[in-house]
Amino acid sequence: MKVLIVNGPNLNLLGVREPDKYGTRSLEEIEQELRTRVKGKDIELLFFQSNTEGEIIDFLQKNYKNSAYLMINPGAFTHTSIALRDAILGLKLPTIEVHLTNIHAREEFRKRSYISDVSVGVITGFGWYSYIMALDYIIKNSGKEG
Amino acid sequence: MKVLIVNGPNLNLLGVREPDKYGTRSLEEIEQELRTRVKGKDIELLFFQSNTEGEIIDFLQKNYKNSAYLMINPGAFTHTSIALRDAILGLKLPTIEVHLTNIHAREEFRKRSYISDVSVGVITGFGWYSYIMALDYIIKNSGKEG
Amino acid sequence: MKVLIVNGPNLNLLGVREPDKYGTRSLEEIEQELRTRVKGKDIELLFFQSNTEGEIIDFLQKNYKNSAYLMINPGAFTHTSIALRDAILGLKLPTIEVHLTNIHAREEFRKRSYISDVSVGVITGFGWYSYIMALDYIIKNSGKEG
Amino acid sequence: MKVLIVNGPNLNLLGVREPDKYGTRSLEEIEQELRTRVKGKDIELLFFQSNTEGEIIDFLQKNYKNSAYLMINPGAFTHTSIALRDAILGLKLPTIEVHLTNIHAREEFRKRSYISDVSVGVITGFGWYSYIMALDYIIKNSGKEG
Amino acid sequence: MKVLIVNGPNLNLLGVREPDKYGTRSLEEIEQELRTRVKGKDIELLFFQSNTEGEIIDFLQKNYKNSAYLMINPGAFTHTSIALRDAILGLKLPTIEVHLTNIHAREEFRKRSYISDVSVGVITGFGWYSYIMALDYIIKNSGKEG
Amino acid sequence: MKVLIVNGPNLNLLGVREPDKYGTRSLEEIEQELRTRVKGKDIELLFFQSNTEGEIIDFLQKNYKNSAYLMINPGAFTHTSIALRDAILGLKLPTIEVHLTNIHAREEFRKRSYISDVSVGVITGFGWYSYIMALDYIIKNSGKEG
Amino acid sequence: MKVLIVNGPNLNLLGVREPDKYGTRSLEEIEQELRTRVKGKDIELLFFQSNTEGEIIDFLQKNYKNSAYLMINPGAFTHTSIALRDAILGLKLPTIEVHLTNIHAREEFRKRSYISDVSVGVITGFGWYSYIMALDYIIKNSGKEG
Amino acid sequence: MKVLIVNGPNLNLLGVREPDKYGTRSLEEIEQELRTRVKGKDIELLFFQSNTEGEIIDFLQKNYKNSAYLMINPGAFTHTSIALRDAILGLKLPTIEVHLTNIHAREEFRKRSYISDVSVGVITGFGWYSYIMALDYIIKNSGKEG
Amino acid sequence: MKVLIVNGPNLNLLGVREPDKYGTRSLEEIEQELRTRVKGKDIELLFFQSNTEGEIIDFLQKNYKNSAYLMINPGAFTHTSIALRDAILGLKLPTIEVHLTNIHAREEFRKRSYISDVSVGVITGFGWYSYIMALDYIIKNSGKEG
Amino acid sequence: MKVLIVNGPNLNLLGVREPDKYGTRSLEEIEQELRTRVKGKDIELLFFQSNTEGEIIDFLQKNYKNSAYLMINPGAFTHTSIALRDAILGLKLPTIEVHLTNIHAREEFRKRSYISDVSVGVITGFGWYSYIMALDYIIKNSGKEG
Amino acid sequence: MKVLIVNGPNLNLLGVREPDKYGTRSLEEIEQELRTRVKGKDIELLFFQSNTEGEIIDFLQKNYKNSAYLMINPGAFTHTSIALRDAILGLKLPTIEVHLTNIHAREEFRKRSYISDVSVGVITGFGWYSYIMALDYIIKNSGKEG
Amino acid sequence: MKVLIVNGPNLNLLGVREPDKYGTRSLEEIEQELRTRVKGKDIELLFFQSNTEGEIIDFLQKNYKNSAYLMINPGAFTHTSIALRDAILGLKLPTIEVHLTNIHAREEFRKRSYISDVSVGVITGFGWYSYIMALDYIIKNSGKEG
Repeated sequence: MKVLIVNGPNLNLLGVREPDKYGTRSLEEIEQELRTRVKGKDIELLFFQSNTEGEIIDFLQKNYKNSAYLMINPGAFTHTSIALRDAILGLKLPTIEVHLTNIHAREEFRKRSYISDVSVGVITGFGWYSYIMALDYIIKNSGKEG
Repeated sequence: MKVLIVNGPNLNLLGVREPDKYGTRSLEEIEQELRTRVKGKDIELLFFQSNTEGEIIDFLQKNYKNSAYLMINPGAFTHTSIALRDAILGLKLPTIEVHLTNIHAREEFRKRSYISDVSVGVITGFGWYSYIMALDYIIKNSGKEG
Repeated sequence: MKVLIVNGPNLNLLGVREPDKYGTRSLEEIEQELRTRVKGKDIELLFFQSNTEGEIIDFLQKNYKNSAYLMINPGAFTHTSIALRDAILGLKLPTIEVHLTNIHAREEFRKRSYISDVSVGVITGFGWYSYIMALDYIIKNSGKEG
Repeated sequence: MKVLIVNGPNLNLLGVREPDKYGTRSLEEIEQELRTRVKGKDIELLFFQSNTEGEIIDFLQKNYKNSAYLMINPGAFTHTSIALRDAILGLKLPTIEVHLTNIHAREEFRKRSYISDVSVGVITGFGWYSYIMALDYIIKNSGKEG
Repeated sequence: MKVLIVNGPNLNLLGVREPDKYGTRSLEEIEQELRTRVKGKDIELLFFQSNTEGEIIDFLQKNYKNSAYLMINPGAFTHTSIALRDAILGLKLPTIEVHLTNIHAREEFRKRSYISDVSVGVITGFGWYSYIMALDYIIKNSGKEG
Repeated sequence: MKVLIVNGPNLNLLGVREPDKYGTRSLEEIEQELRTRVKGKDIELLFFQSNTEGEIIDFLQKNYKNSAYLMINPGAFTHTSIALRDAILGLKLPTIEVHLTNIHAREEFRKRSYISDVSVGVITGFGWYSYIMALDYIIKNSGKEG
Repeated sequence: MKVLIVNGPNLNLLGVREPDKYGTRSLEEIEQELRTRVKGKDIELLFFQSNTEGEIIDFLQKNYKNSAYLMINPGAFTHTSIALRDAILGLKLPTIEVHLTNIHAREEFRKRSYISDVSVGVITGFGWYSYIMALDYIIKNSGKEG
Repeated sequence: MKVLIVNGPNLNLLGVREPDKYGTRSLEEIEQELRTRVKGKDIELLFFQSNTEGEIIDFLQKNYKNSAYLMINPGAFTHTSIALRDAILGLKLPTIEVHLTNIHAREEFRKRSYISDVSVGVITGFGWYSYIMALDYIIKNSGKEG
Repeated sequence: MKVLIVNGPNLNLLGVREPDKYGTRSLEEIEQELRTRVKGKDIELLFFQSNTEGEIIDFLQKNYKNSAYLMINPGAFTHTSIALRDAILGLKLPTIEVHLTNIHAREEFRKRSYISDVSVGVITGFGWYSYIMALDYIIKNSGKEG
Repeated sequence: MKVLIVNGPNLNLLGVREPDKYGTRSLEEIEQELRTRVKGKDIELLFFQSNTEGEIIDFLQKNYKNSAYLMINPGAFTHTSIALRDAILGLKLPTIEVHLTNIHAREEFRKRSYISDVSVGVITGFGWYSYIMALDYIIKNSGKEG
Repeated sequence: MKVLIVNGPNLNLLGVREPDKYGTRSLEEIEQELRTRVKGKDIELLFFQSNTEGEIIDFLQKNYKNSAYLMINPGAFTHTSIALRDAILGLKLPTIEVHLTNIHAREEFRKRSYISDVSVGVITGFGWYSYIMALDYIIKNSGKEG
Repeated sequence: MKVLIVNGPNLNLLGVREPDKYGTRSLEEIEQELRTRVKGKDIELLFFQSNTEGEIIDFLQKNYKNSAYLMINPGAFTHTSIALRDAILGLKLPTIEVHLTNIHAREEFRKRSYISDVSVGVITGFGWYSYIMALDYIIKNSGKEG
């Protein structure tokens, strides 16, 4: 089973960018945590990060076939990208939206989301552990627990 | 370590009320799942459900001392109860908000939340598994994993 | 056939509270009128009034089974209670909303209703006779006229 | 006693137009029901339907004298006609607004009403029986019950 | 010189409708006042009143040629008729909007006007004298004073 | 196959009214173009124009049977007529909305449309050629091309 | 009979400031026109202009006694001065608001008025003749015509 | 003379909850201060606190007779309880609203009040001294000063 | 200890302007009451009233040094003067806002305040006694009670 | 004559993505239809699709010279891309906006368009035939019909 | 060449008022910096500061003739003074708006500006150096650089 | 000292695109002016332009280390790019926002900025000289003037 794990703009700087807000763990370290979690299970993780909206859509279009889930932290695109929403809707990928910070506790304009209502669910505010939770749900839901 | 697990209005009818929206599992069954999860760990779970806003606040005031976390599914109170928000703020209980359904995909008025921005984070849309995710985070975060 | 007839906050003071706005008839007198109306018909009326949102939901949860209709004057809860809305939605009780006064002719904030769009219909502005109209509809619709 | 019963745009197609939404009964059949209801009572019913706002106002101006009540289903004019509101206000006709469907459960723009707050009351959502309810109130209120 | 003087819905009932708000003078009496005012001057007044938006537009289309001015009290159409606005814009008739009452002191929805910004100017609140003021301006502006 | 072609208020003055905005071609000339387009095809065009909302609804009610399409330029009624919307919805006529000018480039209040979302599609901004495009679509879609 | 005639900010520059918008006539010339109009009538005109909100209020407080009317062109204060509104309300001076330009055809923020609804009426858009109209109304209404 | 003194949700935790925001004095201590203030005066103080909206309404309904004033700190209910507003309106109790903190300096949603406009006046921001001020006004206004 | 007591526009007419709304007591009489209150205490009261926003700011700038408190009734400036807000913020004067009437029960536009959130607290609706309450708080808070 | 034909994000998946909403025809097939349409006419079609906003702007900047028209289906960028709007405005390319679906009948946020008001016109809702209509207009308007 | 340099309310307290926000330099010191900058150039600087809106307008009216530029820091008047906007528009003075602080990073109500769109440009956030930048532009633009 | 100078979408066409709005100077010429300005000073300027949001973020991430300032003209991204805002916030680069035109005098949607409040300051409306002003500030502020 293949799972796409996509990170949006600025997330490649995790650990460097505002560590007191986003934590000290780098994106690579989070990816490592996730790989460890699926070790020995029949689950392939495919990671992608880009600062460009169109590249993320390209990635989704190229890889959605044979993929069972999309886990995405759309970063700022959560609030601005209808194109990303359309891609998720069009490709019919079961999507789990994750955020490191609690976006409800930030600027007013972060309240509008183009992604949340076309996702299965949203996990927000638990730092890098948000990704783990999403992965656990995928494992659980696809019967790959054992 | 004590964890308060509070469910708001109408959640006592889980399994009965709109099963295709909220799932067929009853609140008691979810509680059972959660108890199983902490078996053998030094974690006490204290459950409470009420249809009355004031009773939930009473419960929090009586039990917040010696409690490490509040896991709450405020149901409809998410969108209407400033009193509940004030209780959470005032008692300084680290709070995790959970929802069975993806509230972002429902009526417009469910977009306003008085609880989310005073919580640590929010988990929404994963059915009864939302509670499990919250509990896992608590276990993990308090070093009760082993 | 059982019909639930629920009155929300402050309606227990009917006849006392602002009689020129709400009429001089007490809630008991209205109940008496309604009982008279169903005399000899196979219809049982179950009355309930409370100033507490949660108690109304408790009542609905306890009595919705075997009930054919809910007639409700939610009073101020019309405009503030999403929890009550969820109860009506969840219990799938065919609901008729009644109001003594014409709420369209009052404060702006009384224009938002959480109950009306999940009801069968709404009757507003005819004083205590609003209840009679609702009951007549129920009698008629359930073939209990004869 | 004369009662004006006015139907606004598209209501002449009742029974034909979207029967699952508006019912299968034609406007003529509803009128027949209403006539039956007042048989033997000292009440004259004067019916009028038009798709043109101005014609309805013309009708009201010509017939308001000697009329005791106006029962009106303004249809779409509910939400757009300030001219109709002004006519009702100006002629001081006690007005009862009726709707076949529950307008609260439809498009957002049907929430604004120019008629409701200048009416005695509003009955909405009971199909053709909404008219019967209104008539019963008129009969009752004018002491024509016997 | 021809001047069109148009009155919108309900204005035919002046003197009858709410005399304490609109005055006791009938529309005919106002017309008489206006005719007296232009006696001996080379000015022809063409009066029209209708409760139907389309009839007013028909009238304007038929008579705008050879007309120097339009004096209009659009009544409720002020706030709802974009069609009337388009007619005035399209026919390029210099237009003076008049109102008997001070519409700024009435309901909120009377604040939106589709006519005012395509008129030369607006006179509101002076009862029937609003019409006289408009006529005086026309006389003055077209050099017909002498 | 019958096609209804309806023009709303002020469109009878095409060629006269603001020619630099609406073009110099009269409505009759546009109709002539359209007739030429269907010559030799099994398509009957039925034209109607009115400045009165109710007359357009009357026309639609009288002619919708046996008609395959409605092509309509609702003019100002686009933005104000819920009654027209209801007629289109109720009669279930496949509708194509056309406009001479690009209404997106005009006043803010022209952005709200009661017709567009109940139409098959909208063509706006191509002058009289908007009508041709709509007709071509109808010809194409009904297999009358040959 | 004394009439106060007040002009708000920037109106002292009439004739100089944007003559194509406000006309070429100076404020002194307008005052001269007005004086001519009341010649031989028992009417005293008291003129005042200031760019300072507080000075206008001072003037009204000093002179409202024994004054029968206030004619005011509040200029920009129309849209910003609640203090001026309070003065007019408090002193109970019958007030006529005049404007040289048609404020309905200008910036959006000029649509809000704090003065119009506490005035008898409003005259807007007729250049300096707006003042004449207001004065004629005052003469007429106080029986000083002869 | 009886004075009702009601405190809304979370106020029972005064002195404990966020002392730097709400002060270190407990509700009991404030009550003691108030009792001291009326010692020797013919004034009976009746205190009540609840976290439940309905219980406060119950209390008001039971005690409003023979009471001269209501002093209330509605806490969060200020912004959400139309039912409480209706109780105050219906019982016609002269009401003084008090707040410990300056609610104008807090979250945006605390700006809407359902209580303030049906009160005599509002005192906000002076800590527990807000209650003293309210009591002094009551003493003064009822001639109980001596 | 010096206390500045500032009154905004129109307050110099107290007792004259709308006595049923603002009371019959003049500003001088209120000042007299306040002076009496501090007699024998080490408190100097410095009064100022102006209808001009800038003069109030000038006064504050000249006198804020050596002043312990500002008591201000900004009148209409409450809702319009950001300059006054900036002065209070800049001079860091602990400020108490008072109003004679209950501004929450008046026009919608009086709900916006530029002063309240930069004040210590607000007292509104108690007539001239609002000033006494504010002074009592100042006396109390600065330990000048004895 | 060169015509640029640009398709925005996700349109490369036409025929695959939600075929019941967007049709079963692929983008290549639509392009083939368009090429067929101009066969033998002096018109060169230059196609471009990208999921990246900036690449579309790059394409326009490189090719706008010598191009007579731009036909664009901006997809989701319609509602989010001011940069694209600026490109169209700056390059002064006569633009025709097309959409496969009727965007007026979709989510609320698709009502805001940054492209429509800087286009010649808009064609929306006719599936792939929307492109044909646009091309026909271009052919017609540039005299390439023969 | 004469340049008017105007400072609005509270700016006379620069260096004193909130130095960490507005800097420690006084207005006199900024003026000195500016004078130094134009030394030896044919440029006369005329400074003015007032806390009163009307005095600033008076100043502009008295001095705009023979002036080439207005540099203005309107302070709080930026957001409230339409009268100042009208003065700038009327006198046709090329205006440069400057601010010490970055007003975009402050309260929401500071986002509305009545001055910015009638200015040549705006410089905000650079402390006293904002004035220098504005002056440099004026020097540069009028060819006074040498 | 390194200074990043970034230009957003469409700015590469300066001099070509709408020269009467944006000036006739090309981006290369502006860059030349800036280089000239720092000649002989210890300042390195690094220029970048892109039409793609993600490429600008990539550039900032690659070059922010060792850079002292970012001067950016975000063009249309000012109003749409939260990702760019996040990059600036995250990299903590002191940022100066510049615009050629006065964006306050353009479309309503250009009033919202995601960049301005996270910048040091904003310079808008002075054509290419806006860049010079920003550079002068940087030179001045970093003590590189000599």
